[in-house]
Parts: sequence; C-alpha cells; structure tokens
Amino acid sequence: MTWKITKSQLDNEQLLINESLLSLGNGYLGVRGNFEEGYNEEFKSIRGTYINAFHDETEISYGEKLHAFPDKQQKLVNVIDAQTVEIYIDGERFSLFDGEVVNFERHLHMDKGFAERIIHWKSKTGKEAKLHFRRLISFVRREVLAIDVKVEPLQESEVKIVSTVNGDVTNFVDKNDPRVASGHAKRLHVIDARSEEKTSIVKNQTYATELKVACASKTTVDADHTYESHVNDGLVSETYLINGDALQFTKLNVYTDSLRHGEDVTKAGLSILNELKAMSFDSLLEEQQQYLNNFWATSDIVIDGDQELQEGIRFNLFHLLQSVGKDPRSNIAAKGLSGEGYEGHYFWDTEIYIFPVFLMTNPEIAKNLLLHRYSILDSARQRAREMGHTKGALFPWRTITGQESSAYFPAGTAQYHISADIAYSYIQYYLTTKDEQFLKDYMAEVLFETARLWVDTGHFMDGQFRIDDVTGPDEYTCVVNNNYYTNVMAKHNLLWAAKVYRKLNESGGLESLSEKIGLTTEEVDEWEKAGEQMYLPYDENHLIHAQDDSFLQKKRWDLENTPKEEFPLLLNYHPLTLYRYQVCKQADTVLANFLLEDESDLDTIKKSYDYYESITTHDSSLSYCVFSIMASKIGYQEKAYDYFNKTARLDIDNTHGNTRDGLHMANMGGTWMAIVYGFAGLRVKESGLYLDPKLPKEWKSLQFHLNYQDRLIKIHLEENNVSYQLIEGDSLEIKHSGESLLLEKGKEVRNEISI
Amino acid sequence: MTWKITKSQLDNEQLLINESLLSLGNGYLGVRGNFEEGYNEEFKSIRGTYINAFHDETEISYGEKLHAFPDKQQKLVNVIDAQTVEIYIDGERFSLFDGEVVNFERHLHMDKGFAERIIHWKSKTGKEAKLHFRRLISFVRREVLAIDVKVEPLQESEVKIVSTVNGDVTNFVDKNDPRVASGHAKRLHVIDARSEEKTSIVKNQTYATELKVACASKTTVDADHTYESHVNDGLVSETYLINGDALQFTKLNVYTDSLRHGEDVTKAGLSILNELKAMSFDSLLEEQQQYLNNFWATSDIVIDGDQELQEGIRFNLFHLLQSVGKDPRSNIAAKGLSGEGYEGHYFWDTEIYIFPVFLMTNPEIAKNLLLHRYSILDSARQRAREMGHTKGALFPWRTITGQESSAYFPAGTAQYHISADIAYSYIQYYLTTKDEQFLKDYMAEVLFETARLWVDTGHFMDGQFRIDDVTGPDEYTCVVNNNYYTNVMAKHNLLWAAKVYRKLNESGGLESLSEKIGLTTEEVDEWEKAGEQMYLPYDENHLIHAQDDSFLQKKRWDLENTPKEEFPLLLNYHPLTLYRYQVCKQADTVLANFLLEDESDLDTIKKSYDYYESITTHDSSLSYCVFSIMASKIGYQEKAYDYFNKTARLDIDNTHGNTRDGLHMANMGGTWMAIVYGFAGLRVKESGLYLDPKLPKEWKSLQFHLNYQDRLIKIHLEENNVSYQLIEGDSLEIKHSGESLLLEKGKEVRNEISI
Repeated sequence: MTWKITKSQLDNEQLLINESLLSLGNGYLGVRGNFEEGYNEEFKSIRGTYINAFHDETEISYGEKLHAFPDKQQKLVNVIDAQTVEIYIDGERFSLFDGEVVNFERHLHMDKGFAERIIHWKSKTGKEAKLHFRRLISFVRREVLAIDVKVEPLQESEVKIVSTVNGDVTNFVDKNDPRVASGHAKRLHVIDARSEEKTSIVKNQTYATELKVACASKTTVDADHTYESHVNDGLVSETYLINGDALQFTKLNVYTDSLRHGEDVTKAGLSILNELKAMSFDSLLEEQQQYLNNFWATSDIVIDGDQELQEGIRFNLFHLLQSVGKDPRSNIAAKGLSGEGYEGHYFWDTEIYIFPVFLMTNPEIAKNLLLHRYSILDSARQRAREMGHTKGALFPWRTITGQESSAYFPAGTAQYHISADIAYSYIQYYLTTKDEQFLKDYMAEVLFETARLWVDTGHFMDGQFRIDDVTGPDEYTCVVNNNYYTNVMAKHNLLWAAKVYRKLNESGGLESLSEKIGLTTEEVDEWEKAGEQMYLPYDENHLIHAQDDSFLQKKRWDLENTPKEEFPLLLNYHPLTLYRYQVCKQADTVLANFLLEDESDLDTIKKSYDYYESITTHDSSLSYCVFSIMASKIGYQEKAYDYFNKTARLDIDNTHGNTRDGLHMANMGGTWMAIVYGFAGLRVKESGLYLDPKLPKEWKSLQFHLNYQDRLIKIHLEENNVSYQLIEGDSLEIKHSGESLLLEKGKEVRNEISI
Repeated sequence: MTWKITKSQLDNEQLLINESLLSLGNGYLGVRGNFEEGYNEEFKSIRGTYINAFHDETEISYGEKLHAFPDKQQKLVNVIDAQTVEIYIDGERFSLFDGEVVNFERHLHMDKGFAERIIHWKSKTGKEAKLHFRRLISFVRREVLAIDVKVEPLQESEVKIVSTVNGDVTNFVDKNDPRVASGHAKRLHVIDARSEEKTSIVKNQTYATELKVACASKTTVDADHTYESHVNDGLVSETYLINGDALQFTKLNVYTDSLRHGEDVTKAGLSILNELKAMSFDSLLEEQQQYLNNFWATSDIVIDGDQELQEGIRFNLFHLLQSVGKDPRSNIAAKGLSGEGYEGHYFWDTEIYIFPVFLMTNPEIAKNLLLHRYSILDSARQRAREMGHTKGALFPWRTITGQESSAYFPAGTAQYHISADIAYSYIQYYLTTKDEQFLKDYMAEVLFETARLWVDTGHFMDGQFRIDDVTGPDEYTCVVNNNYYTNVMAKHNLLWAAKVYRKLNESGGLESLSEKIGLTTEEVDEWEKAGEQMYLPYDENHLIHAQDDSFLQKKRWDLENTPKEEFPLLLNYHPLTLYRYQVCKQADTVLANFLLEDESDLDTIKKSYDYYESITTHDSSLSYCVFSIMASKIGYQEKAYDYFNKTARLDIDNTHGNTRDGLHMANMGGTWMAIVYGFAGLRVKESGLYLDPKLPKEWKSLQFHLNYQDRLIKIHLEENNVSYQLIEGDSLEIKHSGESLLLEKGKEVRNEISI
C-alpha cells in the first residue's frame, strides 16, 4: 500500500527539500519538517511554523513609484518555534551529524496523518540509543502541534531532554530569487515569555499589523525525572533529567492567534491546552486517523498499475488537505503552509487549480474558499477605485486579507483575469451544489461587481467588446490587448451576471443587494451586450485562437536551441525580451479551451494545442496539468500521460528545483485535475455532469469519487470499461461520452470506454 | 532691452522657484539661487551646488526584481556648499525675514552673466544698511564660483561677516514625486576640512563611486578687519570683524573634482585659486561679459514686438549655455545644473531638443555632446548584452556615465528609440558640418552598432521589418508593437548605417573599425533590407500614421471632461489605466513627422497632427515645442504662436508647477526650435539647407544666425519678407520656400515670405 513517503537522506540539499515534503499542517497551522534536535552548524535549514493568514505588512520599495502602486505588501510570518527537543545521552548531545547513525528511517504517513523518524544512534564514545520521533498537527483540534519522542538507551544512561519554545524567530530571506521573498526578515517580537505551572508560554506580536500569536506548550514524561525551566530573551526552555530505561516524552503545543481567538490569545491557548490534558499522543493520533479515514474514503484516487504515481497522487492530495484554509479568514497559499515562497499569498491558483478538487470531493472546504474571497470584496472594490475604475471590483493578484501585494504590475495587478476566475469558481460551485441561498447571499454580488469591472475596463468598437492592456495567465507576454483567455472568461462572467440578475429579479430576491450596490437594469443590459459581443481573437492563418491581438505577429522563440541552463527563462532574460517573442511560460489559450470548451470547436482546440504547446516552456508549475487535461480531450494519450507524470511527482522529485521553498499547491491540484478532468473527462456544465473516461494504457484500473448536487458517485475504470455507482443521493442523469446515462442508487452502470 | 530677469518676491514658494530661475552655471559647475545669508527657519530651500557628471551610485530597490533590472542608479550629488555669507550689523543678523526690508531687488543679468541682490534693510532695533550681493560662475574659468558683497551701514556700526565652506551636505528628497528623487540623501562625506593660509579647504568623497571633490575658498575684504577661522564637523568658517564705513567682501571658491582634475583635487584647486590671486570680482565679470558677447553675437534671437517672449527666449538660451557640458565627461542633464530633478541624468532630451540649438549656433558644444555619447558606447554594448541582444548597442534611457539608471523599464529601458535618436543627431551633425574625420572616427561606429541593435530587436514578417515591444516617446502608452516614431527613426538609422558603410568602404577607411567590431557585408545588406522594408503603421480610416499597431483601437480618453486638477495624469492614474486609452503625454507621431518629414506627405502630416493634438495632454514639457513647430509647417499660425508662447515662459512662469526642482532644459531648447524650425522652417537634409520662414503676425521682426558647413548666415524676417546674409564662408545655395537661392558673402538676399 502506498500510504507512506520515506525520505531518509541526510545531505543538506535533500534535507531542505524534505522540510517541505514532510511538512505537516491542517489549513490553520503548519510546520516544516525540521529536525527537533537541530542540525550541524554548517547546515542550512528553513525552520518554520506558520498560521494561515497570520501576516505582517512590509513596505514595498520602488526605484520609480507610480500612481496606485501598492505601498505595502502582506507577508506570511514565521511564528513561534516550538519544534525544538534536544536529547543528551550521558551528556552527549544526540545529533544525526555526530557519532554513528546505525539506522535511520523517516516517514510521512498519509493515511494516519503524522510524520516519524526511527533512529538507532551510537555516540562518539559508543553510547547507544534508539529514538522514535513522531509529530502531528491535528485536523480535529486545529491549534495543536504534538511532538512525541521515545528514547531507549541501550545501556544504563542518564537522559537529559531540553525542550524549548522560542519567540525570537525571523522569516527566511533569499535575495536572488524573486519567487521567494525580499528582505524584511524580522516581522514580530516577543511580548510575553514565561513558564507557569510547568507550561511554557510565549506571546509574540507582529510589528506593523500588530497581530498577536501565542504558543502554550506542555510536556509529559512517563518516567521519573527532575524538571527545571528557564526564560531568556523570548525563549522558554525546560530541562528534564531521567535516569533509567526507555521513556516517552510528549510535548503538546497549542497555537492561538488574534485573527481567530480574540485579543487574549494566551488565555485562549491555555484553555485549549487544558482541554487536552487527558490526551496522549496516541489518542490524538486516533482522532487524526478517524478524520483521515473519512477524507480518503471519498477523496482518494486509486490507481492500479503504478506505485510511484499512486504515491504522488496521494502525496499531493494529502498536502492540499493539510494546506487549505478551513475558516473564512483564510484561503490556500501558493505554497500552502509548507514554506515561505510567494510570501504566503493567495493567487488565482486557488480558483483554477485547487478549488475544483475540493468542490468535487469536499464542497464545504470549497465553500470556505469562496467565503474568503467574499470577505475581501470590499478591498477589491477599493482597488478598482485606485485603478481608476468608477465601478466594480478588481480582486488583488496576490494578497492575504485583500490588499494588493504585487509589486510588479505587468505580471501582477494587470492580471485582471483573476476577477473572472473567481466568478468562474462561484459559477462552478453553483452548478455543482445548486445552493440557491449561497447564490443569493454571496455569488450574485461577486458576479455583479466583477461584471461591472469588465464593462468599465473594456469598450465597444465596431460592434465588438474589446479589453485592452491586461495580462493573461502567460506571464511571458504582459499587458496586451484582447487576451483570448481574459476575454472569454470575462464573457462568461458577464453573461452569468446578467443571467443571475434576471433569475433573482424574477424570484424577487434582489431588493437589498440592488439597493446596497445601486444596480440598474441598464447596466445589466450592458453586461449582456458586452458578453454577447465579446471579441475573441481568432487567427485565420493557423485556424487557432490568437493568445492576444499581437502575439502571433511576434518572433518565435527558438526553444530547441535554447540551452537547458537558461530555463526558467525568467531568471535569464529581461521581461522585455520575453515579451518580444512567441514564447509561453504556461498554458494560456489552452487553459481557456479547457475551462470554456464550448466556446470553440474541437478542431480549433486541437490546432491551438499543437501551436501553443510548441512554444511553451512550462516554466510555471501551473502548466503541465492543463496540457495533460487537454491532451486527454484531444486524444493525445501519450502526451496526456507524460504531462500527468510531470505533475504527479513534481515536488516529490523536486523537478522544478525549488521545492525547498515550499510545495507547489496549484500543481498538486493539477494532478487531481489531470486525472478527473483529463483521463476521466469530467466537466460540470449548466446542462449537467459530463464524463468521457479513458484509462491510460499503463494502468490496470482507476477509481475515484465525485460529489455532485448532494450525491456521491463512485467511478471505476478498468481496461475497456467504466462503471458508475451512485453511492448516495437521488437518481441522476449524466452524460457519458456524449450519451445520457441514468444513475440510480445501488445500481452499478457499466459502459464501454470509447477510445 | 530685455537682458535682465527680475524676481524680487519673498514668499517661500516663489523663492524655491527662483532658486532654479536664478541659478548660475557654466556647464561644469552650477549653483542654485539660494540666499547667501540663509532663510527663516520655517522656510524650505533646496540649497545646492552641482558639478556636471559628479555622481554617486545608489541601490535601486524593487518589490520584485526581474532579470537585468539595473541594481544601481547614478545620481548627481549636491557637493560642498560655499554659498554661505552671514552678515551682522552691530550684532544683529541680517535676514530678509527679520526687521524691515526697505528695498529689495533681485536680478539675473543674461548679457553679463551674473546675479545680484540690491537691498536696503533696517534691523529690528533700527540699524540700517545697504547690501549688494553679486555672484557669478565663470564661463572662462570653469572651476570658479565668485561671490561679492558690498555692505554699507547707514550708521557707525561694527560689521561681522561669517563666511563658511560646508562639506556636510545632502541631496534633496521628495518621496511623493517620481520625477524628483527617491531617498539616498547623504551621498558623500568629508575627508578633509581645514583652514590654511587664510584659505578654507574642504574635500569630500562620494560613498559608492569614491569620486572626490574639493572646494578651496579665499576671501578678500577691502577694509581693516580682524580674522578668525574655525573648523568643525566638515564646516570651515571664517569670521571677519570690520569697523567703519562701506566695505567690499569677495569670496572666490574654486571647485575641482577627480573626474577632471586627477586624484589630488585639493592641490589642483589651490593651484587654480593661486592663479586667481590678482583677479577682482569686477575683472572676473569683465571676462564673463566678453565670453557672453561672443555667445550672444551669433546665438541671440531678436524679436521686435513682444518683450515678454524676448525675455523668455533669452532666458532659455542663457540657461542652456549655463547647463550644457563642455567636456566629453559630461552632457546636459534634464534639469541642467539648476536642480536635482531627474537626478542629474542625461536623456534623449539632449539629442532631440538641445543638441540642435548648439549644432546650429555653437557646433563645438554640439560635438562635445556627441563625444560624450561616444564615450559611453561600450556601456551601451554591455547593456545590449544584458538585454539579451547578441549584437549592437542599446543606449541607456537615463544615465550619467553610461550605466542604465532607469528603474521602471516600460518608460525607461523600453524606450529603445534613444539609440536611433543618438544616431539621428550624429547624422544631423555630419550634414551640418561635413566633418569627414568625425564621421570616420566616431559616427560610423555609433551608426553601425545601433543598426545592429535594430536588426537584432526586430524581425521580418510577410516582407515587412517589424519592431515589437518597445516604448515610443509618449510615456502614456508603453511597450507596444511597431511604434511609428521608433520604426521610422530606426529606418533612418539603418539606411544611414548602410550608406556610411558603403561610402567608407569605397574610400578605404574602414579596415580598423571593421576589424574592431567584426563587420560583415552580409549584415550591412541586412541593415539596408530592414531599413527598406521597415513597416510604418498607417491607418486607412483616419489617413494618419498610427502611433503603434494597437493605439487607434483603444478607448479615447475624455480630455474635455477631465478635471484640471487631475493633470498631469501620471500623478493621478495608474499606468495601466493610461495605457488603456488613446491619450498622449507628449508628441510622438507628430515628432516623427517633424524629424523625418519626407517619410510622409503633407496631408498625412496634417491629419496626424489634428488627430493626435486632440488627445495630447502636454503633461510632458517636451510637447509644446513640437506642436508649435509642426503647426508652423502645416500653416496653423495661431496654434504655432500659442504653443510657442507656452514653451517660451514655461519656467519663468512656472506653468508646469515644478520649476523649483530645476529648469526644463528640453523645453528651453524647444523654444529655439519653435522659432528656427517652426517659424523659420529650417530643415537640414542631405540635399541641403531648407528654410521656409513665416513671421508671427504679432511680431514686427525676427532675427537670428545659423552656422552651417563653416558658414555663418544671418536671417532677418520683417513683415512680408526675409533677408539672408552670408556673414562668413563660401557661397552657398539654399532652399527658400522650395526655391533655390544663392547666398554670397556681403550680399543680402531679400525675398518675400509666402503665407
């Protein structure tokens, strides 16, 4: 069974990568896979603990600051470090870099939700011990990081354990990579550090946002011991001395923050800690297992035929679950809670690459992502005003609580498509859940305000609605006119806004919203007109969608003769050079043809795929999965499988070379999408649920579940046929490879797979 | 006679403006018109002394730094302050803000080259004195700033004078205006400050570039006095006590720097100071007058009919002379030596707006500007490599010694046209001087390397040579394809490069250059092909040149309904918003139609003018003059005159609201151009000298001189006729309003003016 990731290397580079790979989290709290006892002095480590959305603000510097460039940037903050547990055997400090490592195993258990290290160690002077480290972040009790260590000396020894909670922490800095961070390492300071009733308490506050975070930590040792505590410079340390045999040491850390727990974070933390009193590590683990059983029961994807891919898929799904915010305060960061890359910001990655996974497997989590976006709608309105729009809402390209945090607008604020992407995800949610109350309470307002943005941004010319000077998903071509992706997504947004207006207007549920945002029927007519007349660039020579008005008139980048070390191109070429060529960082038009396939005939989709594939570098990790999905659609089965392979193990195998800075969440969602939208051909449309499954020839079978309109459907592919089973819910007609199929509870419907 | 600018106001805002208006300089050294005795405490002053090209480097910060964004920015440094002279009458400190100002006059003498203040002052306790301050920066001795004060107490009084040389100075900072500066105020530190043999010596060094500057200052007082000197924190002060009647106090300050005077700047300064020993202020003034007599004899433009405009024209010419560098180390900064706006950088302003003035009146100064550009050709080659070009030279958009200093590339590095602008100025120089040696030694290399840039930047498509993703002169539309201005200027550049190659190849003077830069005939053929097939966008609907491929497809900005306080738009709108509209900061296509008028027929030029005029804000000070010139050409005489008016007094009347940060040099050149290229219709073409004069109906007469191919020509317009007089040089055939005219020395040729 492929439920365990094993990573037992000890070289520094791999250890840094493992810090991300073996990170733990629950969507609220995250901790990187650092060694409790620390590293060698020369070793580099990004020691990090994060709380989703817990951020500070830093100033953005510009050589030339122009109007409405954001002054400040939000930044996920590395919070109090409670990971550290040092162990001494007869005075010799245990370290995997001293003495002799007789045995070392390191695992991440994706079925049970914990990480462990199993060690047999011999000190320089020959003292031996077996050590077993386990850690978990609870899905059931979001504030809890538990660390458990079993120490078994193989001779009579005195064991000393020094356990600390450290408030004196900073963020990681790498000056040379624009994708990591930009200075401003120290973002919070200790305002309280003490030891009270054998509990270590540290409270920190961020400098600019003045958010508070506390860690309350309590340790139990199951053997006779002496105890001593010490507070110094924001560090609370506890020292335990134990004489004798095997012992178990359990450290329960409770993290609370002022975004969720009120201003008195310490009190809140101590109260939660108090509730935990009776909980052993194993009882926490039991809860955890229960939670994960439920998760996997409907979210797992089972492949028969490739253990490595099976491992990759589960790994990706597990990390998505660990990273996704589960309260409306939070969303899912580009790197989840596994690292500091992209400064903990939320991007369109959520809507286009991650939301669909949860929508079809855990709709409550998907709903929360939408609620978070709704919570920043006012900020989006404000940003639209700053950008000179008299109406509408422009969602920030990167943000935590709504403030635009992109410092390079051509590949930031100019990506107006994020507003349509958010609208798209609301529409997909509605189609999948038919949640009419949600439509009325949240979706209508988001659709109306984004529709207003498009009308204010574009203009009519010669009977066409055109949108100038925006950037599409492909960041190697910025600030262009009539980007196909943007225009077609805006069209969808506009027409749905009008449709929702008419629907709610008929049913009479529109008064309060109409009053709140000053709706007029004239503007709704204009949304409709703009949507209907939306200009969608098409190239008559190549019979493809043009990425934008001028893209196909540019020079083609000679990808074949570009040396390997010049990728990713963005680290080796000035943006102006990139903009001057036909070269794509990632799927753009091809992605549009996935999201809104009914806007094009299959021949255009196929020709567009061929054309853009030949000039795409996939320098973005958001690219492969889209090419895999669309290869499936077109019938390029080998390509579909190859691209899928690249998404499934992108982080495990560190193929992008920057996994140490955090896991690539969007790509992780993309793995699921490449299977479900790709191989299985899922589409959720107004006209219903579509599937068009094909099993990669390398696999014996594939099985997964879908949630759809209060139903649970199990889909099983095997050789040349597929079976659909309605596990829960009312009978449903779906489309299978273009034909209608009636699913009824308890009946398995078996069908041939068309190839 | 209009040779004197009088500015006697004492309010803070006007005083700040006057600091620029009454600044003095000689192209090497410049000093703002600050009061020697200082200001009230609450008063704001930008106290500045500058040496052309004397700069430090500062780090450029970016929120997101992408590949080949410049790390560092050069910055003109405010150097040692030797302006200060405090005067006490019986212990009461003289200040125009204390006591009573019985009389105050302040003048700038443009014929004699000095500034003065004539004051009758009464102290709080009733002590009266007449004071007369004069100052000059010598055109003959570039290192010398002389300050002369006559003090005449109207009662028996003890006069105390405290004169200082202060090395503890900083640059001015204004965080809120991208056109001024961006932090980094303190750029140099004192490395020597002493008083020796009654000479004050201060030596400073810049932090990053480690350039040295010294000021050696010596004072004479023509009355009995006691003397005392004091050195403290980089400040050398001298105190003089004088009992009795009127006295004259003369302070000679000599500035030397390590860019021109070797490392031992103090020694060099003292040696120059020593040569000055015998010079009184009046004898310096005499030299100055001599120099200016020569200058005005051929450079003056004399108008009969409007004193205010006459004042404006002379003011502008005088400041150009004061600011333009006269050694190959230096060029002319956007604000000259009158302020810190644009950080002392050199832009295309030089080539397109200032160079022509000197070319036609003082060709030696013009030549120096070209030599400065030649001196940075290696940097331009280097920059081209950084930008991914395998060949050619890309001149920096803003620089001092060649390093690209623009921090916002869409309106910086992307303005590739500067390389064609520089090529254009070389070609104009050659056409005007026929200097074959210069062609061979400098011009050929510049033309070849810039031609290479264009071939590497653009590409052929369907038989057209196209240039994508560059920015033209209009900064309200950035990073576009086939900007008409850029393409037509590149065409000129390419064809001239090929022409020069063929010419030199025939005459056999190409070997060493060919070897140096690895020329091949194949690439020359390609320059020619690219030039000949250059795509020049033309719009069939409007019968105009399209500013670029997409400009005319955008929304039109509603200028009429934009409130006045929203101008300049760049301070009130995000660039993305501006880019989305048909709206121009300044002349772009209209400028191209001036520089290369033979590329278009008159009807296209006229229609283009009408079209672009209606969407141009003139938010750039580089706009009016071009519209004036082209209005003259088209026959819009009133417009020509109105726009001319706006250029002539832009700084004197502070119509752009930012004269306090320095004078607008390009506009000052534009005033001359609006007269000579505009009203008089001058063009210098391969086929000769063209004039097509029209006298504005508001004027009685207009007279000016032109240098052309070793000839001096005097042109006098009066009512309906013009007279040409060849003052020096061989007979010459020119074109007057399309007809050939033979000019012979001593003969005045009189002709009717066609209207």
